[in-house]
Amino acid sequence: MLPYKNLIIIDKKKSLPVYRQISLQLIALIQEGKLPPGAVLPSTRNLAFDLQLHRKTIVAAYETLVSENWIDNLPRKSYTVSPNLPMVRPRSYNSKRLSPFAEGGSFDFERHELIMPIAQSLTNCRIEINDGFPDISMLPVQAISKQFKRALEASASARYFGVNLDGGSSNFKTSLSSFLNQTRGIDMGIENLFTTRGAQMAIYIAASLIIKPGDKVVVSEPSYFIAETLFQKLGAELIRVPMDGDGMCTEKLENILKKDVIKMLYIIPHHHHPTTVTMSVERRNHLMELISAYNFAVIEDDYDYDFQFKYDPYLPLASGDHRGNIIYIGSLTKVLGSPFRLGYMIAGSDFLQAAARMRTLIDLRGDFIMEETISGMIANGDLTRHIQKTNKLYSQRCDFLSDEVSTELGEMIDFTKPTGGMALWLKFKPEYDLSKIIKKANLKGLAIRGSAYCSGKDAHFNAFRFGFASLNEQELAEAVSIIKKTAESL
Amino acid sequence: MLPYKNLIIIDKKKSLPVYRQISLQLIALIQEGKLPPGAVLPSTRNLAFDLQLHRKTIVAAYETLVSENWIDNLPRKSYTVSPNLPMVRPRSYNSKRLSPFAEGGSFDFERHELIMPIAQSLTNCRIEINDGFPDISMLPVQAISKQFKRALEASASARYFGVNLDGGSSNFKTSLSSFLNQTRGIDMGIENLFTTRGAQMAIYIAASLIIKPGDKVVVSEPSYFIAETLFQKLGAELIRVPMDGDGMCTEKLENILKKDVIKMLYIIPHHHHPTTVTMSVERRNHLMELISAYNFAVIEDDYDYDFQFKYDPYLPLASGDHRGNIIYIGSLTKVLGSPFRLGYMIAGSDFLQAAARMRTLIDLRGDFIMEETISGMIANGDLTRHIQKTNKLYSQRCDFLSDEVSTELGEMIDFTKPTGGMALWLKFKPEYDLSKIIKKANLKGLAIRGSAYCSGKDAHFNAFRFGFASLNEQELAEAVSIIKKTAESL
Repeated sequence: MLPYKNLIIIDKKKSLPVYRQISLQLIALIQEGKLPPGAVLPSTRNLAFDLQLHRKTIVAAYETLVSENWIDNLPRKSYTVSPNLPMVRPRSYNSKRLSPFAEGGSFDFERHELIMPIAQSLTNCRIEINDGFPDISMLPVQAISKQFKRALEASASARYFGVNLDGGSSNFKTSLSSFLNQTRGIDMGIENLFTTRGAQMAIYIAASLIIKPGDKVVVSEPSYFIAETLFQKLGAELIRVPMDGDGMCTEKLENILKKDVIKMLYIIPHHHHPTTVTMSVERRNHLMELISAYNFAVIEDDYDYDFQFKYDPYLPLASGDHRGNIIYIGSLTKVLGSPFRLGYMIAGSDFLQAAARMRTLIDLRGDFIMEETISGMIANGDLTRHIQKTNKLYSQRCDFLSDEVSTELGEMIDFTKPTGGMALWLKFKPEYDLSKIIKKANLKGLAIRGSAYCSGKDAHFNAFRFGFASLNEQELAEAVSIIKKTAESL
Repeated sequence: MLPYKNLIIIDKKKSLPVYRQISLQLIALIQEGKLPPGAVLPSTRNLAFDLQLHRKTIVAAYETLVSENWIDNLPRKSYTVSPNLPMVRPRSYNSKRLSPFAEGGSFDFERHELIMPIAQSLTNCRIEINDGFPDISMLPVQAISKQFKRALEASASARYFGVNLDGGSSNFKTSLSSFLNQTRGIDMGIENLFTTRGAQMAIYIAASLIIKPGDKVVVSEPSYFIAETLFQKLGAELIRVPMDGDGMCTEKLENILKKDVIKMLYIIPHHHHPTTVTMSVERRNHLMELISAYNFAVIEDDYDYDFQFKYDPYLPLASGDHRGNIIYIGSLTKVLGSPFRLGYMIAGSDFLQAAARMRTLIDLRGDFIMEETISGMIANGDLTRHIQKTNKLYSQRCDFLSDEVSTELGEMIDFTKPTGGMALWLKFKPEYDLSKIIKKANLKGLAIRGSAYCSGKDAHFNAFRFGFASLNEQELAEAVSIIKKTAESL
């Protein structure tokens, strides 16, 4: 409740009746937005007590406001500010009455630029192609809700919960560590695991600890744009190494390492973003040699490891002998869907201690209940079952879309069917301008919202990520058909 | 499952039998930690298929390992790596077999310092005094679980969920905005609200956007240590303004403003951390004048507004005419407890757009399900009921503890009973060395883990925060009694 005693000042010496003084001041509060439409006024008894007045005075003030349509009084219900105010809100006729926040302040601040290769304004579409997100209608709602309730009950009965500033759930760390060990063959102890909100926070913390202004950082060309933007904001000079069908061209990386001091390499060896390419064994071996020969930090972003449709003999680089130079980053968001934000970083324990201190400044600590919830799902096998179930579905959708795209768009495009993941990388031939296709397809009911590299410095790629995991076969076929018709009519 | 096809290499020309080649390589995987204790091995059928061998060969390999106690085979269950390995883990006898993460890497990184005025190593105590956290045994577990499940079901049935990179829950923004409007009288639109993980992330983002290296930033003395550490890390030069019983001494702030350009002020006018002081009306008015007269940004940290035991006529500074210079920061963590991390920032819309871009780099987006869960609790009144219920309990505990402290510790200490919140600020007279009391009390079963300002540059405060909200009266009495005995025996 608002402190009315302080907000409503009664002057009994004034000629204006007290009830009218009250109603006018309440109107001012409504006009200022302090009492917004729908707000419940205090009961006449409470306000009378607060203002040390007779209750009948308050009733009179309220009834005046009701008669003027400022407030409503439903029978047996409390007085509430009318949803249909009798006057235009004051901000439209009195500049002095503007919200103080509308003035914008007189201090300077940093206005980051963040240019995303994603169409932002597409609306009213029947079908939406995303960047490669899981189908969250597959979520095991019962299983998650059950674990959530269990976690909440356990927390509520733990008297001394929440005392440690750095205290994530240690159950989560243990079960996640065993899950990662078994699925990825990474030789690590619990001291090498640090849990974060999502992979992005892990990238943010690792890059912030490593990069100093002027440092040279190698990324692929093209590369994950949010990571790239972050490195530039931290003052890195980006050196771009091209990709081919076997992943990042390590021969070119070696040439760079021979003549320049590189601080860090950011790499996605498995289902590269955006191109979906998986790095070949030869390139991996070459890269591991380069890591041993030259001193540089490596962020291995492995957001998509859990989705492999075929027998896929690639363990993460971090499972090899990297002498502590690799920081391995992953996420459960691709497994459970965008509403869940749980990621992790695997690195040397010294580095993780610095990461923990930085995380305290950013965010204090993680979401304990969510960590416990997912921990329960790892322990009882729900998570693995969910991965197996969705993997099978996504594999079918990948097959279906690849066939559709080959048959329908065959001559317009160039693409390689990925061995896993949730998206195709569709590269249009130069005569088909992708940015035009995206705009026109929108008018036909299709929103293309996967990362699209087709304008500015990225125009030569003329390609986008066609996320297939969250669309059914009928939707996939319709999306391809709209793209085909749009491209033909350019 | 590990990619055994790649990990186990069979050479049929070798004299070593194939089954033994397999078992030796499995032992190596166990020793390297790639197959940790308890890990489930693939079924004999699957491994035989992967390695293109007869199943009997795999059975022979597994049986050898069982006989050597490397793995277990419970009847009708799968083969698992033994929890009691027959040899010490390789890292203890073979330095070449160290986890690559144990080597620490050869790259430089920033090793933040973060000195917290909190005893970290206290253990095995019957009673723990924290910094002022809610009693999470009061959590409405049923109500939260119900809303969580509802939110999860709604998300799972929304086909195009999770496409917007910046997409927090708009339901949450709407309901939180109305809650803040009604409880705090802040005149704002939905475009002035930005939701974060917790108040700390809001402080991190706001300070990072505002502070450039060398900027002068005013904080109180003492001040919230995590915010202070953050400002210093961002390169701020801190100017400390003392506190008294009416809050920050604005006369001293004015003297500073007259001779220096100040970039930002960080202030907690309501239940200041750590001292619990609430700023007087006179000082508030004076501060608002200073904000109008001099151009500087203000972070108003109002973490504790919802807990007021008495009629408390103080609206936030942000409800006044600050011309957009105030960034108002709050949290639901104090309402719901440490496991929940939901905070917010109220500011000009330009500033919030920059904040949103920065948040994308840090963390992409919020936890949609949690936001929807709490949104449901605001909408149906659960949140307000919970605040009212806990407020009453905390008020009783505050009364009880204040009486106990006055009666039992009367001559040793100095304190002012707060009008709300979850902690007392107990200042010991100089002859009672608080750092010694904390150490000795620990031996008597009491862990004092509230912020304690009693060493280094803070030694002259000789004070700590006695969080009372999460302890019952018996525990509070026992804690005071241990402190008394400890202090007397110094």
